[in-house]
Amino acid sequence: MTMEQLPLAETGTDSPGTSDNATGIAGSVTGDAGNATGAADRTLTAADKVAAAYRAIRTHNRPEIWISLRGEADVLAEAAAIDARVARGENLPLAGILVAVKDNIDIAGIPTTCACPGFARTPDHTAPAVARLVAQGAIILGKTNLDQFATGLVGTRSPYGAVRNSRFPDRVSGGSSSGSAVAVALGIVDAALGTDTAGSGRVPAALNGIVGIKPTLGLVPTTGVVPACPDYDAVTVFARDLTLATTVANTMIGPDSADPRSRSWPADTPLGAPARTTLAVPADHNLKSLTPAYRAAFDATVDRWRAGGGEITTVDIAELLDAATLLYDGAIVAQRYAAVGEFLSGKPDGADPVVAGIIEGGSRPAAHSYVADLDRLARAAATARSLFSEYPALLLPTTTEHPAIAAVKADPISINTRMGTFTNFCNLLDLAAVAVPGVDTSDGDPFGVMLVTPAFADQVGIDLAARLLGEPSPLITDTGTDLLVVGAHLRGLPLHHQLEQAQARFIGEVLTSATYRMVALPATPPKPGMLRVGSADGRSLPGELYRLSPAALGAFLSNLPSPMTLGKVELDSGEWVTGFACDYASSRDATDITEYGGWKNYLNADR
Amino acid sequence: MTMEQLPLAETGTDSPGTSDNATGIAGSVTGDAGNATGAADRTLTAADKVAAAYRAIRTHNRPEIWISLRGEADVLAEAAAIDARVARGENLPLAGILVAVKDNIDIAGIPTTCACPGFARTPDHTAPAVARLVAQGAIILGKTNLDQFATGLVGTRSPYGAVRNSRFPDRVSGGSSSGSAVAVALGIVDAALGTDTAGSGRVPAALNGIVGIKPTLGLVPTTGVVPACPDYDAVTVFARDLTLATTVANTMIGPDSADPRSRSWPADTPLGAPARTTLAVPADHNLKSLTPAYRAAFDATVDRWRAGGGEITTVDIAELLDAATLLYDGAIVAQRYAAVGEFLSGKPDGADPVVAGIIEGGSRPAAHSYVADLDRLARAAATARSLFSEYPALLLPTTTEHPAIAAVKADPISINTRMGTFTNFCNLLDLAAVAVPGVDTSDGDPFGVMLVTPAFADQVGIDLAARLLGEPSPLITDTGTDLLVVGAHLRGLPLHHQLEQAQARFIGEVLTSATYRMVALPATPPKPGMLRVGSADGRSLPGELYRLSPAALGAFLSNLPSPMTLGKVELDSGEWVTGFACDYASSRDATDITEYGGWKNYLNADR
Repeated sequence: MTMEQLPLAETGTDSPGTSDNATGIAGSVTGDAGNATGAADRTLTAADKVAAAYRAIRTHNRPEIWISLRGEADVLAEAAAIDARVARGENLPLAGILVAVKDNIDIAGIPTTCACPGFARTPDHTAPAVARLVAQGAIILGKTNLDQFATGLVGTRSPYGAVRNSRFPDRVSGGSSSGSAVAVALGIVDAALGTDTAGSGRVPAALNGIVGIKPTLGLVPTTGVVPACPDYDAVTVFARDLTLATTVANTMIGPDSADPRSRSWPADTPLGAPARTTLAVPADHNLKSLTPAYRAAFDATVDRWRAGGGEITTVDIAELLDAATLLYDGAIVAQRYAAVGEFLSGKPDGADPVVAGIIEGGSRPAAHSYVADLDRLARAAATARSLFSEYPALLLPTTTEHPAIAAVKADPISINTRMGTFTNFCNLLDLAAVAVPGVDTSDGDPFGVMLVTPAFADQVGIDLAARLLGEPSPLITDTGTDLLVVGAHLRGLPLHHQLEQAQARFIGEVLTSATYRMVALPATPPKPGMLRVGSADGRSLPGELYRLSPAALGAFLSNLPSPMTLGKVELDSGEWVTGFACDYASSRDATDITEYGGWKNYLNADR
Repeated sequence: MTMEQLPLAETGTDSPGTSDNATGIAGSVTGDAGNATGAADRTLTAADKVAAAYRAIRTHNRPEIWISLRGEADVLAEAAAIDARVARGENLPLAGILVAVKDNIDIAGIPTTCACPGFARTPDHTAPAVARLVAQGAIILGKTNLDQFATGLVGTRSPYGAVRNSRFPDRVSGGSSSGSAVAVALGIVDAALGTDTAGSGRVPAALNGIVGIKPTLGLVPTTGVVPACPDYDAVTVFARDLTLATTVANTMIGPDSADPRSRSWPADTPLGAPARTTLAVPADHNLKSLTPAYRAAFDATVDRWRAGGGEITTVDIAELLDAATLLYDGAIVAQRYAAVGEFLSGKPDGADPVVAGIIEGGSRPAAHSYVADLDRLARAAATARSLFSEYPALLLPTTTEHPAIAAVKADPISINTRMGTFTNFCNLLDLAAVAVPGVDTSDGDPFGVMLVTPAFADQVGIDLAARLLGEPSPLITDTGTDLLVVGAHLRGLPLHHQLEQAQARFIGEVLTSATYRMVALPATPPKPGMLRVGSADGRSLPGELYRLSPAALGAFLSNLPSPMTLGKVELDSGEWVTGFACDYASSRDATDITEYGGWKNYLNADR
């Protein structure tokens, strides 16, 4: 693999912003650069997109984004091969999607540095998270800069240069996944991988006005990822829109036998957010660390949620915020020492003094303090579970402020600490989070919010984020069974709430094949019975398709009263899905209502 | 509450065995003393049983069993009240079951000592685990001796006296739940509560020839239990038979909002062991810590399993045994220091020097060593998961040997360490275990084995233990939906394997109400269709009832092909259960086979 190994980008660090000439475009998610490499634009070949990306790299002149950028000719050749496979009819869902990868995630043949030159080692294997994207046609441009050893939320802690913000180059990019976020925000790549222990996959999303998805721990394997805190590390994804970010996350998710912390979607995974949702938002006094501009932006974002028909309730999250402080101020920083502490104690080439100081501090706490901190975390996690038993998600500011690079260099610890106020507790308490753009501040600074949900309720977070953004909601889950309802479970009818309780997902309106008849059963509430009679007497009838987890489907069946039954129903597409029928005996003497053309028509008919 | 506060039982410690005159009876699970207070004997009133228990206490003269024994008059009055409630027709499933409670579990009004007199404090609240038993009619006799702070597997580490073995009084009882196990083995009480971090609820079961159930962590709340290692502590139960032990465990299981580590049965809880089971047994070199007598007893127990039709496969469990050593030899002993280390550093009255030495050693390890140990545990847990994906359970010796009390006093650490070889890893790797009597050694020494299963597969362990003992298998789970099968899923028929894959539980053979007809569908494999037609034309048909978890039921429905359906079916008892029916269209032209009286009759008929 030919590499354009970039020099240490000291210019970026020394003169932030001065060389940037693309701020206006970069700030706009739908700007030209964004469209040029956008996932949705299928009129461009992969090769076209690669060429445009390298032009954008040259135009933006942000060398500090990359630690290893692949040679353009190599990548063009790979893109041409992808184009040829697509032309041959191969199904490559991510064909031509350009991706940047944080440089703490292994790609075979490219050095992994963690932004510490002395740590560089060239792996033989590509991390499964990356390999799964490449297998679907994604094209990797290179490895991106980060706060060294993924320790920081600022993007300044790297000998490869402080990463400048995409919109305001004198301000921080956020970190630790700094280069990945800015590469996406500038429209150079479609998506980029980060990692997130304390907020590293979310804070840079917020500060650059893009989407950052931090899945539940264990869903995306961390095999081939250099650990920051091995028990609390997640692989994350950035993109300019929620749909692509979710598709990339979905592609990376799946068990991996080499990752001892790998977890799969459980049998009761919620597959959809309820139609009417009350979000929990922090109490006033929980928000005092926000700058006035960010506080106003948070309130404006909450107002946007309400304007869209959503509701909110204020909750006190002080115990969660207190738990957050344990990540660096308690004994848990020993996780970082266990990962790379011995390496850093050898004073390697290019070690960042702030990062080294933090990690070496992890040698000091006693194991019994660690145990006491874990106990506090267990109690905070129980508090979180209790909160999430009442509300499907927490809506939180992603970070507290957007500091200048110079301010962070002058005060490298306390600003960083404050910026993690709302992100730090998430992995400690085993929660999932989606970071999306909120309402910008009045001076155009990006402001971001998070939808935080319990572990494995990632789909609920995606759905609510989509609702906040006014976008369609893509699938991060890939489990569940589709259930056809044709009667009292239809939207607006008396039993629909059972599907909401089942955390089911609306898939669409469908028609059965023309082989069914419908009767009105003498039931309370009124219900139809649908019977398969064959094509001679049958008719196509309308229904709604919902997706349920195995556990929700089992509970639904378990609670189903006579005379209703569930079995396979044929759709007009020829597909067979699980759906409603009824006992023969009860249908025998019921009124045939087939000719109304569906239960809602029958209910609405002037009979 | 009037207490017979016993003096420190120094006589028991100084002259083990010399005062015991009931060894012969005590050793027999079905002996007189056992029957006198046996759960199954419903001809005795609760008051009769209490009187018999106090007689047994006097006869056996084992004062070291108890730290706090309730006054007989108080307990008799409580028993009389229970008898009166039963006489009034109240449903008290545990009415008159006599229970002893390890003295690290709170009972309101009785001091909790953890076998350290200086620690004694009298709680205001009873632990939920105990309160749930009392609410069902159980009667608590008192609090039992233990290895101090539940630290030990021997039963000698207590200022209240070394607890003598029920069968061989010069040998150890095993610990740490020493008094509880011996009170059960001697037939003084029906059941007793222990706790288990390293094996404390299993080793004493093995050494006294009784049953010990250690449920999955979190199922029984640890609220009101003094922690040993808070992340790895389980409340356990001893009884002389598996049925009572399981009933008591079932009663204690349930969520508790005050316990941050409380967990509930998941939606995919396996509800039954497969009919033909291959157990994993350790490789020869994994068993080298067993004494020759115990090794022979283990082989004889394995032979008994095979004689009952079971199969075995030998697996290497070296990684699990290595993980076990981390409990005391690694940093995890810091959990013990975090729990009571500061208290012990104040040199309290009655601190056991061996226990204090172990726990105070927990102040020394560094947090990063703890993290490294957790990482080893995560890898070992992944290895265990991989093993349990192939085998439903591990069959292991519970402990390695049965030492004399004098031997343990002479060498208090290394014998204890060896005795935990097979029990220590269980909670560290989040596994469940049932300890049951195996084949005694040739000199009549009790030898015990464990069925070890993954977390939440407790029911599988109970089922396999019952099969090994040749007993019926009781319910430790209380979840699931009953499913009636009437055709190809019946035992011995082509689709029965789907119920085994669903980890379903056979409940029984049943009859439908006399409202059904059956047709032979033109399907492969052959299947019947059952239709509810009403009492005029219908007939009662035979079937089998199985219990499935919600997730298994949902998956079963999801995979069900047309024309089969599932809905409610009426049994001849009048109960409605989920069961099979079929599409009307496909039944219309099929042959009516109702008069054969069921699918198996039809298949076997000479047509």
